[in-house]
Amino acid sequence: MATLTDVQPQTITLEAPLDMHLHLRQGKMLERVLPASAQHFAGAVIMPNLLPPITNLAALTTYRNEITALVQGLAQETAFEPYMTLFFKDYSRTELAAAKDDIIGIKLYPDGVTTNSAGGVRSLQEYHRTFADMADLGIPLLVHGETDGFVLDRERDFLAQYRYLAETFPTLTIVVEHVTTREAAQLLEDYPNLHATITVHHLLITLNDVAGGLLRPHLFCKPIAKRPEDREALVGLATRGHPKVMFGSDSAPHPRHAKEACGCAAGVFSAPVALPLLVALFEQHGALANLPAFVSGNAQRIYKLTPARKQVTLLRQAWQVDNTLDDAPEDDKVTVFAGGETLEWQVQNVQVVA
Amino acid sequence: MATLTDVQPQTITLEAPLDMHLHLRQGKMLERVLPASAQHFAGAVIMPNLLPPITNLAALTTYRNEITALVQGLAQETAFEPYMTLFFKDYSRTELAAAKDDIIGIKLYPDGVTTNSAGGVRSLQEYHRTFADMADLGIPLLVHGETDGFVLDRERDFLAQYRYLAETFPTLTIVVEHVTTREAAQLLEDYPNLHATITVHHLLITLNDVAGGLLRPHLFCKPIAKRPEDREALVGLATRGHPKVMFGSDSAPHPRHAKEACGCAAGVFSAPVALPLLVALFEQHGALANLPAFVSGNAQRIYKLTPARKQVTLLRQAWQVDNTLDDAPEDDKVTVFAGGETLEWQVQNVQVVA
Repeated sequence: MATLTDVQPQTITLEAPLDMHLHLRQGKMLERVLPASAQHFAGAVIMPNLLPPITNLAALTTYRNEITALVQGLAQETAFEPYMTLFFKDYSRTELAAAKDDIIGIKLYPDGVTTNSAGGVRSLQEYHRTFADMADLGIPLLVHGETDGFVLDRERDFLAQYRYLAETFPTLTIVVEHVTTREAAQLLEDYPNLHATITVHHLLITLNDVAGGLLRPHLFCKPIAKRPEDREALVGLATRGHPKVMFGSDSAPHPRHAKEACGCAAGVFSAPVALPLLVALFEQHGALANLPAFVSGNAQRIYKLTPARKQVTLLRQAWQVDNTLDDAPEDDKVTVFAGGETLEWQVQNVQVVA
Repeated sequence: MATLTDVQPQTITLEAPLDMHLHLRQGKMLERVLPASAQHFAGAVIMPNLLPPITNLAALTTYRNEITALVQGLAQETAFEPYMTLFFKDYSRTELAAAKDDIIGIKLYPDGVTTNSAGGVRSLQEYHRTFADMADLGIPLLVHGETDGFVLDRERDFLAQYRYLAETFPTLTIVVEHVTTREAAQLLEDYPNLHATITVHHLLITLNDVAGGLLRPHLFCKPIAKRPEDREALVGLATRGHPKVMFGSDSAPHPRHAKEACGCAAGVFSAPVALPLLVALFEQHGALANLPAFVSGNAQRIYKLTPARKQVTLLRQAWQVDNTLDDAPEDDKVTVFAGGETLEWQVQNVQVVA
């Protein structure tokens, strides 16, 4: 479990921070966004919603090898474990048993609810056998829990399906991904096998930030940010180090032409600023002691992980966040969450202990 | 009062349709957007939130003359009355008396709630004398009724201020501009001096259309579109020809560079499609008989207007709406509401009866 090894006010060292929900994309975009995550985290759960989605071990192995090769090519010494996932479908027990050691879990998308989720699930009841086999084999189920109803109600409307899953498969480890509502937060208390990830942006923004002034496409994501009282519930879960709750950035880059457009893609790119923002938020709530559980300890326990002993030290030193990821051409630039803002904490040093 | 002079199913003639809430902008944009409104409507209430806002008779006269000159320059014979408004401030009784015959009302913006509303009102109580003088002189008060709170609650949170105004100044004609919530719709029943305008887009879209799929900046406006049950309440008011409710498009053009941007300006440009969409909506609800009241009769009675006898005939003939207003350079293009869609009705003929 990560510990707060330095309680002096000027630096904080996090041991093996983990990002339990990450979109690394493919090709050139993968090359561009990987360093930010690989530098700051000891590992990340890699989402499988590529084009086409990752639905077999061969595709998963190819993708993991791409990621691993890029990690090894980074100048700085690092240790970054990509925890791979399959895109949920009606896998056979044989397929599940074969994949078990290569995956951390299987990600379920209802059909069409977010980026590249076409071909997702329409009715949970049709997949009873796969859920049962996953429970039996100890493979966690990661869920994007939204219906196709009214945008602000989609997560709440999906809660009955979480209840169905949690009750029907009590030994299945289920993760409510990127939880955004206080009702979903409350549901964690009802079922021992329900867990959740929370993004950093849902801890900081509400719909007001997205659409309360000018409309801000770079803050548009799915699930969309909700009401202030929802955000408060999430901050409560995170800052008290709730044992069932893990950090998962859902960092999801899109090039500018896909964001500042007639139809803007969903996704917030937060990987470069996630840890500095979390340290500031937890400090502001007098909860720094609970940050290690949120960014590593809970995930290690829930997923039974033993990440590399990567120590990430943050320094209290103001810095201004670059607006964009790199010097790509204008249309391809990726806007960074909190770009242009001055943050109080920055990653100073990363050390991997043998 | 407008009447449905042709009840045959293939054409509908509206007499003196009025747009009781319109943004015509300035300069080149004014030239570009004026024709759409001038061709289809006998008159429109012209919003005063220019840069700088219209706060004196000289500026108002200059603006009206610009509009009138452009109307006269249109190739087609037309009759379009710009009903001018001042931007609310602490006008003296002398100023109000001098302006009375040149304005249809005064538009109140709370400070900073929408495009060019900086310098608006912070506390209604400070303007008691102006409201009293307006009531006394018979000058209507048009209100953008939103607080600066959570984006979905702003109109509801403002209702107490409508109550204050309606109760304190019972002879003041007050218009709830671009009403978007069922609670505000309900408030009309409580005070004889409260009226409302409704846009065509708020009769057709909800927040789901803005942010339920890809984020759609061209559907972003203030007040933002709300929930399905809110839209239903508005459709109910409009289609039953509620006597206190008037059509006001709030058609508000922005160039593409201000919409498909990091910070997207608020406004939907609907002027070219407003009447065809309203005819289709009212027909769908079996309420064509109430359309004349909504698009003209109620406004004539509430504001005591006698518009030109301009007869606008719509034909049931499918057409595809252009995506943009004109052939301006890409960055300056104005996207049209329902652009690319095929509408069932189109404006066929406009005739001004002497």
